Amino acid sequence: MADAVGIGLLGCGIVGAEVAQTLAAHEKEITQRVGARLEIRKVAVRNLGKDRNVVLPDSVFTDNATDVVSDPDIQVIIEVMGGIEPARTLILEAFAAGKHVISANKELIGTLGKELFDAADRAEVEFSFEAAVAGGVPIVRPLKESLAGESVERIVGILNGTTNYILTKMSEEEMEFGEALAEAQNLGYSELDPTADIEGFDAAAKLSILASIAFNANVVAGDVYREGITKVTLADIAFAENLGYAVKLLAIAEKVDGEIAMRVHPAMIPATHPLASVRDNLNAIFVEGDKVGEVMFYGRGAGGGPTAISVIGDVIDVARHIVGGGTGVRHASTGTAKVRPMNKTRSQYYVLLRIADRPGVLAQVSQAFTDNDVSIRSVLQEGFGDEASLIMVTHTALEQNFQALLTALRHLDIVEDVVSSMRVQSAED
Amino acid sequence: MADAVGIGLLGCGIVGAEVAQTLAAHEKEITQRVGARLEIRKVAVRNLGKDRNVVLPDSVFTDNATDVVSDPDIQVIIEVMGGIEPARTLILEAFAAGKHVISANKELIGTLGKELFDAADRAEVEFSFEAAVAGGVPIVRPLKESLAGESVERIVGILNGTTNYILTKMSEEEMEFGEALAEAQNLGYSELDPTADIEGFDAAAKLSILASIAFNANVVAGDVYREGITKVTLADIAFAENLGYAVKLLAIAEKVDGEIAMRVHPAMIPATHPLASVRDNLNAIFVEGDKVGEVMFYGRGAGGGPTAISVIGDVIDVARHIVGGGTGVRHASTGTAKVRPMNKTRSQYYVLLRIADRPGVLAQVSQAFTDNDVSIRSVLQEGFGDEASLIMVTHTALEQNFQALLTALRHLDIVEDVVSSMRVQSAED
Repeated sequence: MADAVGIGLLGCGIVGAEVAQTLAAHEKEITQRVGARLEIRKVAVRNLGKDRNVVLPDSVFTDNATDVVSDPDIQVIIEVMGGIEPARTLILEAFAAGKHVISANKELIGTLGKELFDAADRAEVEFSFEAAVAGGVPIVRPLKESLAGESVERIVGILNGTTNYILTKMSEEEMEFGEALAEAQNLGYSELDPTADIEGFDAAAKLSILASIAFNANVVAGDVYREGITKVTLADIAFAENLGYAVKLLAIAEKVDGEIAMRVHPAMIPATHPLASVRDNLNAIFVEGDKVGEVMFYGRGAGGGPTAISVIGDVIDVARHIVGGGTGVRHASTGTAKVRPMNKTRSQYYVLLRIADRPGVLAQVSQAFTDNDVSIRSVLQEGFGDEASLIMVTHTALEQNFQALLTALRHLDIVEDVVSSMRVQSAED
Repeated sequence: MADAVGIGLLGCGIVGAEVAQTLAAHEKEITQRVGARLEIRKVAVRNLGKDRNVVLPDSVFTDNATDVVSDPDIQVIIEVMGGIEPARTLILEAFAAGKHVISANKELIGTLGKELFDAADRAEVEFSFEAAVAGGVPIVRPLKESLAGESVERIVGILNGTTNYILTKMSEEEMEFGEALAEAQNLGYSELDPTADIEGFDAAAKLSILASIAFNANVVAGDVYREGITKVTLADIAFAENLGYAVKLLAIAEKVDGEIAMRVHPAMIPATHPLASVRDNLNAIFVEGDKVGEVMFYGRGAGGGPTAISVIGDVIDVARHIVGGGTGVRHASTGTAKVRPMNKTRSQYYVLLRIADRPGVLAQVSQAFTDNDVSIRSVLQEGFGDEASLIMVTHTALEQNFQALLTALRHLDIVEDVVSSMRVQSAED
């Protein structure tokens, strides 16, 4: 038995530095748990001159990442550099050299997961990525291990902290979207270019990783239907609250007729639903299973400390296998289930119409719903004259029927404007 | 490598039957995951005549439990019989015979955990008990593995479904305690004798198990300070809601100055706190860590299906070790931290006084607070004349000071009655 396990770090930004600091701070407990010391032996950084504020000797730093993944004294690589390349090539080289890899890289795994899972399998090494989904929230391991006997039916998550922060500010302080975004950026929650957050790309990558685990499915971020939050207005949020809902950017993956449906979009969710009370930049993942019912995991989805804790949980696990034998649960991705197209998914919907306030309007609007096989659950008329609005919530309907309905409504003379519409995630059906 | 792992079941009630059914229903996936079939080879039941409605041949059933734990063809024992004896003796016999044990028995582990952990250690076998805390909610494994690099500071949980159901009904439907309890019993949430639920014994057992894991502490259910919910009134709940709080039976464990403080009692929690929105008979565990911040786990704390899923997660884990090598994280319980006495814990408090409505009352009451080193955070006077009330919330104070304050208030002439008081769990300090 080795008395130490050699660790190589790819990247030493906020997360990397936290990993190094936490390993040092909890050295005694971790050594006891693993049965050997964990030793960071090499750290690849882009700029050797930068002060890292970590407790590692200068000699471990290198600007040659290939040296790290080929070092025979290193058994475990921690990839916290982010981005597709060179992370992908370095991880594949590490696998080929027989090293286990821990990664926090949602973009890479959400895009090229299958290539990495298969390469790890062929090399008979472990590839763990708890930190890639929802930062400090334990979700990958619980899905793989604690719920191993479960048939997961649906995952509904708030997977992006920046957008949840923005929606919280819009809801609680009636702050406009742009102002809330600027505040999120000031707090360091969002990048200078916020596109990945506000357009749902970040949530889509994480959702595809969760779906691939929960459903043993071979899916990628690009398979996820995606709408961001830029069109959500303060009026939508106010109407939602009046109807008893909160507006959240939801990431939903579900098994429907043997297919995998995945989507990221703003949605109304009942105020009593546990996800409705997830505030600020927190993340949460709601899992619905056949036997277990509802399980939710909640916590900080980003930040150095939380992400480092997830990385270290994976490192301890892999190191225990190196020292004491055994392996982690492999990620199979052998599934052949097809991705269900968005227009075949089902949801409830909210729609806000500006209408001409005259006799027979409701009858004409209702007829359009009926013609498109969308059933009305509740309707509320507000105002009168030029300011009249209809606020409608539907029963569960097929997406393509609802989209056809929107087109039909736009063509009705008595409908002046389809002001907004949003999906409603509810317990109905 | 064996082509099958032999399982022995102690007990075949609701949970046992669900375990058997689920293992059969997911046989293919579980076999793939483990690398061998899981085979239930013996099932100990009290009454051989009873129809079990499970897919097992009659020949596996026996009313001699010792036969199960001594069977050389059985490697893993699942104990779902409950109670202290004979479960304790059978588990110790199983350990001595070299068998791994999965248990859902919170009463036993909360009371005699250390004896079992130590015995499993000596026998070099695994002892897993995810199902013993919060049924289907994955919490034991995440604490042991995902948060292995974390220094947990506090756990705040809703660990008893029956009392949470009662408090939900009292809050949302203004149902009286007795009526809500009767409804919980009708729904099968509570036993005929509800003492263990409503007096907090059940939550205390689970809390001691969580604390022993999170803090590596050698603590038992009897170390937990405990107050039930029988004294909570509809008026308390209404006042709490006016002040922006929800009333919950909280189970709290925290590290304070190197000691472990544990308590179960009704408490007011801010309505915006994620635990406040845990409704009906659901459970949730809120974990606060040094690095990870806040993490919450939520789900069904009882019931055959959820509990069976936790049992099966543990069985798959142990079976993978039998087939592929390695071991689970051992439960050390080597900790020597002392239990902090209740009077040394700190909390905020709510107190409702009926007072004589005359000049100088508030000054006298305030002086009593000051004399006892309890600082007032907010005060609200309601009514007048004989019906005058003072509703006060304190800043964080020492329990013994608050108790001394209550005594002092009762001795004040101008205080007609200390109508009620409750701890307030908040983010202050």
